[in-house]
Amino acid sequence: MRVIGIDPGLRNLGWGVIDTDGAKMRHVANGICHSTGTELGVRLLSLFEQLTDVFTTHAPDTAAVEHTFVNKDAVGTLKLGQARGIAMLVPARAGLEVGEYAPNAVKKAVVGVGHADKKQVEHMVKMQLPGVKLAGPDASDALAIAICHAFHAQSAGRLADVVRRAGA
Amino acid sequence: MRVIGIDPGLRNLGWGVIDTDGAKMRHVANGICHSTGTELGVRLLSLFEQLTDVFTTHAPDTAAVEHTFVNKDAVGTLKLGQARGIAMLVPARAGLEVGEYAPNAVKKAVVGVGHADKKQVEHMVKMQLPGVKLAGPDASDALAIAICHAFHAQSAGRLADVVRRAGA
Repeated sequence: MRVIGIDPGLRNLGWGVIDTDGAKMRHVANGICHSTGTELGVRLLSLFEQLTDVFTTHAPDTAAVEHTFVNKDAVGTLKLGQARGIAMLVPARAGLEVGEYAPNAVKKAVVGVGHADKKQVEHMVKMQLPGVKLAGPDASDALAIAICHAFHAQSAGRLADVVRRAGA
Repeated sequence: MRVIGIDPGLRNLGWGVIDTDGAKMRHVANGICHSTGTELGVRLLSLFEQLTDVFTTHAPDTAAVEHTFVNKDAVGTLKLGQARGIAMLVPARAGLEVGEYAPNAVKKAVVGVGHADKKQVEHMVKMQLPGVKLAGPDASDALAIAICHAFHAQSAGRLADVVRRAGA
């Protein structure tokens, strides 16, 4: 299963793609879409086009986006929301369901505790995906989201197996 | 010049199209895109597709979106932001610049005061566009945004004329 994780932001939108096979994980690619232009519509369009290209190139089977809504101010939250709208739209256009995870759930899945800092997350992402070269902190966060989604999908799969066996 | 105004919302996204010729305005169409589905990505995709259809059908020359960021809570602001991302993306994809106006600027342009209520806005929209049938309050607001944008474009045009004449 190929999983893409997306860390939305209006200036920098991080993405990371991994392949999973049972408990095994392999890094595929990671990067950051930088919005270009000054007008908001143009910036959102540039994110939309770059992220659409990532989907075309890597053809993920499933997607997950970080679910942040706490921000310092309403202006910042609105900006984030606009970028997040693009991050949700692109996978939906590709026909994928989109998992949403709160930052604490992502940290708990990757580091083991909900209040890890960025350095710890980056360290564990590198441990899980040996040899990975990170495009930056937003790409590291995006890979963490992908790992979290893969864990959840795996648990859900195991649960489905248990239910199936119990029913048989 | 054909102007589209958009009042973004995740549940109901209002739109209104007018034609302007100097100071004259004519109603073309108005409506509301209702998001379908429960998953956020699917809802945003449905808004994206409906609004893209509106652009294909009515081929506006210029677009304007209401610039609201004050909301009761961060969750509401994020939701609005996601819908607003779609409202900004669709005109940008059509190659249009997108004007942004604060609600008070829209009310001031249409009613004459910045603190008018929805009924007053609706009344003045009907006065400006005789015979218009409104699809609902969100569509009325969208037409008000289009009228505001037309006023601003007209003033900008007059200003450009004055500058041109002064330079000649």
